[in-house]
Amino acid sequence: MSVVIYEVGPRDGLQNEPTLVPLEAKIAFVDALSNAGLSIIEVGAFVSPARVPAMADSAEVFAGITRRQGTRYAALVPNLVGLERAVNAKADFVAVFAAASEMFSQRNINHTIAESLDIYTSVVATAGTAGLQSRAYLSTAFGCPFEGRVPIPRVVQLTQRLLDLGAYEVAISDTIGVAHPEQVRRVLDAVLATVPADRLAVHFHDTRGMGVANVAVALQMGIRTIDSSAGGLGGCPYAPGATGNIATEDLLYLLSGLGSDTGVDAARVADASLAIEPVLGHSLPSRALQAEAAARRRAQPAQA
Amino acid sequence: MSVVIYEVGPRDGLQNEPTLVPLEAKIAFVDALSNAGLSIIEVGAFVSPARVPAMADSAEVFAGITRRQGTRYAALVPNLVGLERAVNAKADFVAVFAAASEMFSQRNINHTIAESLDIYTSVVATAGTAGLQSRAYLSTAFGCPFEGRVPIPRVVQLTQRLLDLGAYEVAISDTIGVAHPEQVRRVLDAVLATVPADRLAVHFHDTRGMGVANVAVALQMGIRTIDSSAGGLGGCPYAPGATGNIATEDLLYLLSGLGSDTGVDAARVADASLAIEPVLGHSLPSRALQAEAAARRRAQPAQA
Repeated sequence: MSVVIYEVGPRDGLQNEPTLVPLEAKIAFVDALSNAGLSIIEVGAFVSPARVPAMADSAEVFAGITRRQGTRYAALVPNLVGLERAVNAKADFVAVFAAASEMFSQRNINHTIAESLDIYTSVVATAGTAGLQSRAYLSTAFGCPFEGRVPIPRVVQLTQRLLDLGAYEVAISDTIGVAHPEQVRRVLDAVLATVPADRLAVHFHDTRGMGVANVAVALQMGIRTIDSSAGGLGGCPYAPGATGNIATEDLLYLLSGLGSDTGVDAARVADASLAIEPVLGHSLPSRALQAEAAARRRAQPAQA
Repeated sequence: MSVVIYEVGPRDGLQNEPTLVPLEAKIAFVDALSNAGLSIIEVGAFVSPARVPAMADSAEVFAGITRRQGTRYAALVPNLVGLERAVNAKADFVAVFAAASEMFSQRNINHTIAESLDIYTSVVATAGTAGLQSRAYLSTAFGCPFEGRVPIPRVVQLTQRLLDLGAYEVAISDTIGVAHPEQVRRVLDAVLATVPADRLAVHFHDTRGMGVANVAVALQMGIRTIDSSAGGLGGCPYAPGATGNIATEDLLYLLSGLGSDTGVDAARVADASLAIEPVLGHSLPSRALQAEAAARRRAQPAQA
């Protein structure tokens, strides 16, 4: 089984950390991740620097990284202005983000879902003209902090719309980390009735400890692109101590058990995570990372 | 689907915490867990106080708790002396612990596997005479810290032996938290070929983030008794920051998603965990607990 890990640590991860990470540390982080063999890294976002200060230096990060052959570097863009910045930064492709919940869409991106689809139609078309593919996130697909339950037919319909407007892939996303395995089965069952598995990815947060179990269900159902962040970086700005994306290290442990060859060196991903921890000033939540870190401490005799 | 949660926090959890928890806090913890509706709680262990100081006051814990109708209180016992102490403490049933790895058995309990089975034969028989059922743990069933891989046929054979000597249930245990879902499927497939599912439980540690995913597989395969500890209490004394047992809160979130009625009040389990946190001096690793704690902080306006 061949699985693609879509690494979101430098974007979804760092964007949600309370600490602003210096440019050099971001560049080193992305380079460490590409050197670990990750084939897709979402490097940054060309969004409003006023609203998302953590992503204000994304152009400088793109300019500073060492591009590794075999790795594609993505940028999140909200509109045509962001797309232009992404093109100038030489992003390999872009990602747009729609929501399955009307209230979340309006509060998060200040547009109704319908407005956002209009904007993304022109973004994806313009990106295509510039030779760039577009991925789409469908956020709050498993629940919304404002509306609660999100109807499955709406998730199916919006996934189809995002593909129809030209996205090569839709990441069905559990933005707030409420999904559980049975729900993942139900939602993916419905989506897969009309959409082929190779046009889908899944994006889980481990807020309630279900992340890896949710991925296991998605893999069983044929999904082969999984989002994760090194170290489980991210968290939620409103929930100190809560975890963010599922951790790349935990995902790699799962995939290794399944006999899947990802081409990613787990020890090097752990190196990348451990190097960013002191910059953030706290340990990262990945269980596999912490087990690896503890094993390294045991192997390393205490210094006199 | 009716699932029994076998709560091991007061025993497997506290036993592996670096902090010695005062008697009164232990009693309050057990009572909070029974009041949450948990139907089985492993309260303590009648082992050598010199080797396991954290369990030295287990008799006092048994004497101090308020017995709730509907909850059965268990004690871990290594031998006939321990059994006698458990009987005197009025434990409702006892648990013995064998290993699937020879080196782990010899280092952990100072007996070969064969010797331990001889001992448990008399422990289980004597317990039966006293009217007490016996559960058996089969530790290191998914891997050993000394031997590495553990052959599946040995797990099957020892499970059968433990049932044959009179245990009512065997908890197939991942002592060091290395199991992954595919391995769980393979091991349980082999065991279930000769043992009915209602004689089995599973006991996972979340050391590498696989705990909930492993439970999901076990549930799919018909296992209906799942071990967990409140808050994910436990950890490994050799791995600071590493997690212990899978968390009762995370398990409850999974089960709730599956529509399983456990009769357990998740908010009250969280109460029990949050009350023990300051005694231990650190946050507990359960993701669902931390999400719940963050939600409570948001609901509670900051004090002036």
